Amino acid sequence: MKLIVTEDYAEMSRIAAQHLLGYMSRSRRMNLAVTAGNTPKQMYQYVIEAVQGKPWYSHCYFYNFDEIPFRGKSGDGVTITNLRKLFFTPAGINEGNIQQLTLDNYRDHDGKIARDGGLDLVLMGLGADSHFCGNLPGTTHFHDLTTEVPIEGKMVDIVVHGELGGDYSLAPDSYVTMGPKSIMAARNLIIIVSGEGKAQALKQMLEGPVTEAVPASVLQLHPSLTVIADKAAASALA
Amino acid sequence: MKLIVTEDYAEMSRIAAQHLLGYMSRSRRMNLAVTAGNTPKQMYQYVIEAVQGKPWYSHCYFYNFDEIPFRGKSGDGVTITNLRKLFFTPAGINEGNIQQLTLDNYRDHDGKIARDGGLDLVLMGLGADSHFCGNLPGTTHFHDLTTEVPIEGKMVDIVVHGELGGDYSLAPDSYVTMGPKSIMAARNLIIIVSGEGKAQALKQMLEGPVTEAVPASVLQLHPSLTVIADKAAASALA
Amino acid sequence: MKLIVTEDYAEMSRIAAQHLLGYMSRSRRMNLAVTAGNTPKQMYQYVIEAVQGKPWYSHCYFYNFDEIPFRGKSGDGVTITNLRKLFFTPAGINEGNIQQLTLDNYRDHDGKIARDGGLDLVLMGLGADSHFCGNLPGTTHFHDLTTEVPIEGKMVDIVVHGELGGDYSLAPDSYVTMGPKSIMAARNLIIIVSGEGKAQALKQMLEGPVTEAVPASVLQLHPSLTVIADKAAASALA
Amino acid sequence: MKLIVTEDYAEMSRIAAQHLLGYMSRSRRMNLAVTAGNTPKQMYQYVIEAVQGKPWYSHCYFYNFDEIPFRGKSGDGVTITNLRKLFFTPAGINEGNIQQLTLDNYRDHDGKIARDGGLDLVLMGLGADSHFCGNLPGTTHFHDLTTEVPIEGKMVDIVVHGELGGDYSLAPDSYVTMGPKSIMAARNLIIIVSGEGKAQALKQMLEGPVTEAVPASVLQLHPSLTVIADKAAASALA
Repeated sequence: MKLIVTEDYAEMSRIAAQHLLGYMSRSRRMNLAVTAGNTPKQMYQYVIEAVQGKPWYSHCYFYNFDEIPFRGKSGDGVTITNLRKLFFTPAGINEGNIQQLTLDNYRDHDGKIARDGGLDLVLMGLGADSHFCGNLPGTTHFHDLTTEVPIEGKMVDIVVHGELGGDYSLAPDSYVTMGPKSIMAARNLIIIVSGEGKAQALKQMLEGPVTEAVPASVLQLHPSLTVIADKAAASALA
Repeated sequence: MKLIVTEDYAEMSRIAAQHLLGYMSRSRRMNLAVTAGNTPKQMYQYVIEAVQGKPWYSHCYFYNFDEIPFRGKSGDGVTITNLRKLFFTPAGINEGNIQQLTLDNYRDHDGKIARDGGLDLVLMGLGADSHFCGNLPGTTHFHDLTTEVPIEGKMVDIVVHGELGGDYSLAPDSYVTMGPKSIMAARNLIIIVSGEGKAQALKQMLEGPVTEAVPASVLQLHPSLTVIADKAAASALA
Repeated sequence: MKLIVTEDYAEMSRIAAQHLLGYMSRSRRMNLAVTAGNTPKQMYQYVIEAVQGKPWYSHCYFYNFDEIPFRGKSGDGVTITNLRKLFFTPAGINEGNIQQLTLDNYRDHDGKIARDGGLDLVLMGLGADSHFCGNLPGTTHFHDLTTEVPIEGKMVDIVVHGELGGDYSLAPDSYVTMGPKSIMAARNLIIIVSGEGKAQALKQMLEGPVTEAVPASVLQLHPSLTVIADKAAASALA
Repeated sequence: MKLIVTEDYAEMSRIAAQHLLGYMSRSRRMNLAVTAGNTPKQMYQYVIEAVQGKPWYSHCYFYNFDEIPFRGKSGDGVTITNLRKLFFTPAGINEGNIQQLTLDNYRDHDGKIARDGGLDLVLMGLGADSHFCGNLPGTTHFHDLTTEVPIEGKMVDIVVHGELGGDYSLAPDSYVTMGPKSIMAARNLIIIVSGEGKAQALKQMLEGPVTEAVPASVLQLHPSLTVIADKAAASALA
């Protein structure tokens, strides 16, 4: 495990972009699962600046690692919509290079990835509750592959306020996520963490026991994990 | 994770030898940590037959992943003595290609492995108590790197009867082992399992929750784990 | 480059099988281009013995690296027919795991391989005229990708007697082969060589200059080439 | 082979830095052979800016791929002096991470690199005469490993004016260079090319035959070559 502590969010974003561009610059097919959300925004700006209009990245295939469908709507869900807006569309990623995980195809997702040669990278964020991808405390087990998670009880509030802008009418009955075992199967992992609000989660992830109560704690056991955290996020580390 | 179930111990040994020889046949430096004990005996016989007297394996470096010193004796401990007898000496492995882990150098073991380019393979057995390497229930945590484990309480009996032929006078105060985090840092893992006596351990390892009470349960989260088990060992699997 | 000299054809075949099985035993998708012909016959017998009826090799995809169509017949050509008989059918390789190169699809062959993640291995033989795959002296250039080669002039005799059992009525107008540049693009190369009749070709390949007049001479420049030759084939080496 | 054509020298430098930083950001030991000279100057400025004062690159080891000793002086030669000035010193690379090739140790250089696990990358420039590293037309053969090249005849002028600032009193009797076979043995190659003065050399390298008269022509046969050229350098390409 490599821990990189940066001065601030801007440096975290630059360093994360440097890592992602490093993968995108390799000379063979690259299968990259990348995160939506707030943390990667500036990272994607750096990456977009480097790649838009450039024809050299056609061997890079992009995967989403979780998806929340909009209730009553077919087509793109929350995650892929967000990824398109943040990254794929401004970067000019070809539609054929976007490999969607959906509620319809998730049962074959791990098989598809294996046939595609495996994921070279999962780049993800860390939740204040120590979740990664859609693996929130109480939802999945460490040994779960890609799975469907019911949205019920307090998960309704979490999803509606976290992902649906507070609109309860959009909340679906379930979402899908690559489970811990699926994520651990990738060849390389990067997790980006910013802000004081994540400091306890990062401390628990890196310094506490490996336990399903702290989903991200398992990631430290991956043979190639790079943590890129700004000073504020790293402030609680020993 | 790939699960290979063989007819019997002999086939398990042949398939495991096939895997190990596959690594040994690659064209660049290979760093291989291999197991002592009873389970690999026939595997090593197949490997020895293939490699003894052949000059093509000089790029293979061998590591032990745990060591129990003999009380009051300097020099080789239990594990390396066993490995020499089972494999290194009959196979004609050059002394310079044997990289010992000892009580004296264990603090730098993870650093040394990193400078050596990382382990390409750990090939290990599974204990009836679900231990792997020296990671017995109650000794190490999933997040431990290479570490020293005190031999006290019931561990004395376990070590004396498991490794020292019942001779209490040889029992040292501690042993060293690569911890779960160190083992998970290798690029590939293979675990070999034989016999009905291991059936419950294998079931717990593969089908139970990932928990420190079942040390080997964590291995299923590695991106490249191959389990080679004979039918008897696999008999309790779902 | 690694040179392995074996006692005889049988040992060459065992060592080559050991190498091929090593690739087939890896834990992720493997793309393997393998040779037809006489040299690999016993190697395939060893491999077939190890893999037939075993379900553990479904992540292995097999490619032919050249093809000669039978004149006036659609469907399988000379190479794939030979490979089926020698290896795919007795080994029980699933049809979906056989990726054919044909006169119809060769223009996209290099692109397809790149989308498939690249070849992990090309295992080939050496011709007495120093050819490899369909790269005979005077047919292709080192910088050629997969290409169509006209069968005319003395090539007619070479093809008819070498591949068509002497039946001129079967000779097509052209064949296809991965060119030197396509072969060099694989991650690993193995070449197997047996018999005194290949001794001069091997000497020229390994000890002469790198020149298009000796097509196989270029292979020594690959970052991962293993040559497995029996004593007779190696008898002219310095 | 991947060809990247940039607008100008500045963009070539940024893209090359992006590639080099990608390697330097990987999570395991990286063995990197990098070029001195004029072409990489701005690339190194970008890299220095990113890495100076950062402790995250201690797993990166740097190698020079050729060396010209100063006549009558022991210690650092022309190449390593230049690399220190351009990159190692301002970037703060630890002395222990600099692995020198010299006239004294070159006979073991290929062996040392193999024991170190092989080179992950060679990043080099292209000469107007199509040379790469110290492989000028008429000096080395494609099958040469690391070798000593006598400085005599017209090579004296080439070396004195190219590397010694015109001072004939500094010209030594020979220099050392990794030969084509040694360079081809690296896992990945990058070549950077700038300016109209290199346009014919690049055209010959990529579009002409593979011949020792054009040393760099062999590089196109490497399984992972990336060419980063500015528009001026690419202006003669078809």
